[in-house]
Amino acid sequence: MLMQTHEARLDALRKELVKRELDGFVVPISDEHMSEYVGAYAQRLEWLTGFGGSAGSAIVLAGEYEGTGAAIFVDGRYTVQVRDQVDGALFEYRSVPQDSHGKWLLEHAPEGARIGYDAWLHSRGWAKAISGALAKIGGELVAVDGNPIDAVWDSQPVPSPAPATIHSDEHAGRSSAEKRAEVADWLKREGHDAVVISALDSVAWLLNIRGADVDHTPVALSYVLAHSDGTAELFIAPEKVTPELERHLGNAVTIRSRDSFPAALSDLRGKTVAVDPERAVAAIFELLEQGGAKTVATLDPTILPKAIKNTVEQQGHRDAQHRDGAAVSKFLHWLEEQAPSGEIDELGAAAQLKAFREETGVLRDLSFDTISAAGAHAALPHYKVDEDSNIPIPPSSIYLVDSGGQYADGTTDITRTVWVGPGKPSAEMIDRNTRVLKGHIAIATAVFPAGSAGSQLDSFARQYLWQAGVDYAHGTGHGVGSFLSVHEGPQRIAKASGGQAGTDHPIHAGMIISNEPGYYKQGHFGIRIENLVLVEEREIEGGEGEWLGFETLTFVPLDRQLIDKSMLSHSEIAWVDAYHATTAEILLPQLEGADRDWVERNCAPL
Amino acid sequence: MLMQTHEARLDALRKELVKRELDGFVVPISDEHMSEYVGAYAQRLEWLTGFGGSAGSAIVLAGEYEGTGAAIFVDGRYTVQVRDQVDGALFEYRSVPQDSHGKWLLEHAPEGARIGYDAWLHSRGWAKAISGALAKIGGELVAVDGNPIDAVWDSQPVPSPAPATIHSDEHAGRSSAEKRAEVADWLKREGHDAVVISALDSVAWLLNIRGADVDHTPVALSYVLAHSDGTAELFIAPEKVTPELERHLGNAVTIRSRDSFPAALSDLRGKTVAVDPERAVAAIFELLEQGGAKTVATLDPTILPKAIKNTVEQQGHRDAQHRDGAAVSKFLHWLEEQAPSGEIDELGAAAQLKAFREETGVLRDLSFDTISAAGAHAALPHYKVDEDSNIPIPPSSIYLVDSGGQYADGTTDITRTVWVGPGKPSAEMIDRNTRVLKGHIAIATAVFPAGSAGSQLDSFARQYLWQAGVDYAHGTGHGVGSFLSVHEGPQRIAKASGGQAGTDHPIHAGMIISNEPGYYKQGHFGIRIENLVLVEEREIEGGEGEWLGFETLTFVPLDRQLIDKSMLSHSEIAWVDAYHATTAEILLPQLEGADRDWVERNCAPL
Repeated sequence: MLMQTHEARLDALRKELVKRELDGFVVPISDEHMSEYVGAYAQRLEWLTGFGGSAGSAIVLAGEYEGTGAAIFVDGRYTVQVRDQVDGALFEYRSVPQDSHGKWLLEHAPEGARIGYDAWLHSRGWAKAISGALAKIGGELVAVDGNPIDAVWDSQPVPSPAPATIHSDEHAGRSSAEKRAEVADWLKREGHDAVVISALDSVAWLLNIRGADVDHTPVALSYVLAHSDGTAELFIAPEKVTPELERHLGNAVTIRSRDSFPAALSDLRGKTVAVDPERAVAAIFELLEQGGAKTVATLDPTILPKAIKNTVEQQGHRDAQHRDGAAVSKFLHWLEEQAPSGEIDELGAAAQLKAFREETGVLRDLSFDTISAAGAHAALPHYKVDEDSNIPIPPSSIYLVDSGGQYADGTTDITRTVWVGPGKPSAEMIDRNTRVLKGHIAIATAVFPAGSAGSQLDSFARQYLWQAGVDYAHGTGHGVGSFLSVHEGPQRIAKASGGQAGTDHPIHAGMIISNEPGYYKQGHFGIRIENLVLVEEREIEGGEGEWLGFETLTFVPLDRQLIDKSMLSHSEIAWVDAYHATTAEILLPQLEGADRDWVERNCAPL
Repeated sequence: MLMQTHEARLDALRKELVKRELDGFVVPISDEHMSEYVGAYAQRLEWLTGFGGSAGSAIVLAGEYEGTGAAIFVDGRYTVQVRDQVDGALFEYRSVPQDSHGKWLLEHAPEGARIGYDAWLHSRGWAKAISGALAKIGGELVAVDGNPIDAVWDSQPVPSPAPATIHSDEHAGRSSAEKRAEVADWLKREGHDAVVISALDSVAWLLNIRGADVDHTPVALSYVLAHSDGTAELFIAPEKVTPELERHLGNAVTIRSRDSFPAALSDLRGKTVAVDPERAVAAIFELLEQGGAKTVATLDPTILPKAIKNTVEQQGHRDAQHRDGAAVSKFLHWLEEQAPSGEIDELGAAAQLKAFREETGVLRDLSFDTISAAGAHAALPHYKVDEDSNIPIPPSSIYLVDSGGQYADGTTDITRTVWVGPGKPSAEMIDRNTRVLKGHIAIATAVFPAGSAGSQLDSFARQYLWQAGVDYAHGTGHGVGSFLSVHEGPQRIAKASGGQAGTDHPIHAGMIISNEPGYYKQGHFGIRIENLVLVEEREIEGGEGEWLGFETLTFVPLDRQLIDKSMLSHSEIAWVDAYHATTAEILLPQLEGADRDWVERNCAPL
């Protein structure tokens, strides 16, 4: 079968829009749960434009327009990629946050334009902002009845039919009944009748279920309506429901078809219903309000208890990281031996790393697409290797690998940057890597008052790079789930300026956060050192008030060829040596032969 | 004459409110310019309640009420002081931000209450919030016609009649005409017809005038209406206007009576007028809007150019600090000799310090009430010594002095903490002082990317205290004016959480900021080390982008008895030694005899 061109697809969409009497349509990368990563059926932007990044959107005008009549919007990470993948003759390139949908529509949409949007894919805040912008030209934003792309997408994948599975109490540490009771208490305290749980990982956490509907994130496409009496309704495709799931959920959870969710929302007249405006699409608010319910915009009540890991989840994370660390160490040993030949490419390395993880026998999935970045590719912090971009790892270069595994007891995320021989890294590489390491250690050893937000720690990680006049253009740390999303809120270590989500959220004991400073020299090389850390309470003699610090969870040797010991303070050297001593203690019992020797060698004191 | 009791004053106010058919009234510490510090005529809260702090407010109910029917609201700095100064039988104590006016009114005001407020003393934002709260009980917020306290305050001071004076171009570095042209350009660029300049220091900066209407802040009570054609109107009491002032202002500035300002606002029908909602009272917005003008809420356009000192102002600050440093050094020398006898009290020390500043022959005023804090008083970061609180400085104790001078070339602000012999400070005092010093050095030596906000630097100052489980409950740094306010925005070094004003504002080269970490052990001792720093551009070899750092402006020896050299890194020791070497270089030419010897001794390498 001939591949349909993007021009033909765009044309088909425009015909569909004209048929529906729409002057345009907005295409996000999103699903009915506002997920960060979406299933193949929801990759409408990629189908339409060819853009393969994880964040972006397009607007297509139909009927009368000037120029291309269509634009694709991406952020700074994808400036280069969008030009490679998307035809500029079809779509203007636009950069967010400098450019916005509203601004573009005001400049390009005709007076009185009727612009369509799929209310199941956008937040209400977005819809309000765009409606306001369109009002200025006498236009309006119109919720479509069925996504027009679906109408013209011939071989659109169906949503995954994978069954929902049970996340055992042994791994969850708390029963779903207990969690639902906590949510019910919250509803009663706040005076609400029910809450819509629309984020997929929130549903998974609350009901102790998992799924396989989104790559790398073990969630099942479903919604929950939780009531103040402790009961809940799970809206899920019937083919996903097994007898085990029914037994697991018990009598207090009614299983209903996912198709009946809209009707259920319309059926809550007179009820007060809590909905998280960051996690629920506009359609949910509209159906509730049209049905006579009163909506209250509030943070999803599962977010904080999900982020604060209980002691069972904490131990699960330690176990998962220790196991995963052995796999990564085998890989780094393998890489050290194989890569200097120049015969290993990025995809091959990623495949080998996956194979080592699979050898554990308990890998459920990777936790995200492995960033296997050789040479200048490592200078792109979000580089995603594919058949087109794949290159052999050049001998005498830096290789960066950011990867993770999904295990039933925990989700891992680790980055190591290593020198691929032969020869020695440049003085600049060693200087930059050592500064990144110093920042990493500053976070790992930070002590801070309870109530501190991530923004208060971020500069610790950057200070040694700043002293050299360099920085990195990404956050320092993100939350991580327990056999769930590798990016989990609400906490985040990053600068507060610019209002980045989560940077002002207090860090609580029990949260898991990545510690991943880096440095990127465009066109040359990239460095990142990432371990996960667990927030723990600290008793300090003579201290006043409550104090927090971090327990490092990830143990894999650091590449000593990239460390200049003379740039480290005594306490930093002591940290590295203690880190390596613990790494050896954890990894050696899991390894044999040459892998053991490699770890022992790399864990010797600096 | 018998002093009228606060009970009698409260009673008189209530009678006045009943006469005006009001059920209550709100009493802030504020003036018609939203000043941080206000003239004696505007100290209505102190008159009513006896509270002498610099920030607070009260609400008084009249007619029918339960309990005291009145409350005083102060922040954490004044929890102790308010209980000392204000009778709890008359006013309930309330803490902000936990308690708010709106919350208290909802709990205490009767249904349908008419609560009065003086629209010349509150922001529009406050008025909207309180109106909204009162609407919930069918009540309303009513702007009074004349402040009811003024109606019952027998011997209310009149606003200061001091003449406005000229701030010469030699000190200002730029002419008023040039500044007004810049504002006019801004107005044209933004499409506004005029801007209301209501903050007193903004008026002073824009017109290069000064005054003596507020203690320690050399401003003249006045408003400016600046127009897009480059002309301006200055609204000021006629008795303040001298022939020199008229000549200085020239033809483009029309001098009008301050009394005619309301009418002038009402007379701008059809004009678009920019007003800063943080710096203009509600009445200004109301008069403009009632008169048919369109108001645009925006940042006062003088704020940023005022904060970014030109090279003349920068050099003026250096000169002022060097001169002031010699006076402070004489004082510390005097203190070292006199205080161990136990015969110097806090007021006496403050007077002696002022005398040394006056000896310079060019002191215009202190820049704020000197914090002269002995023993446990030093543990109150905002301690203000008066006849009641004054104590002799105990021998063998820590003494903290935070003070500054107003000079025509610059405003100074410095804190030193010194050990008063005989004997030696405790290990705890030395440990805490050394950690404060390490934090101070971390700020002084910070290098950071252009565009960084103060919140990104704040934790650098706290990190060594945090490691010991302690912290300080105030910001790390505030902006400072040029012969203007000792607290000047928009920049501020403090944590971003809690949304503190200015912490998200980018720091620009040319700004002056205080660097003042501290430590306070309640009931025992307090430590603070404060120098002013100037933001400067930094060239970094091999760096990418633009970088900033600080030039320290304040030079006075640090007390080496409170420093544990073994806790300092090599680079921290080098910083202290270099700081002291520069201090000696700057101070020795200004000093003679024993003062010289004292500085030389105290500036030797650690």
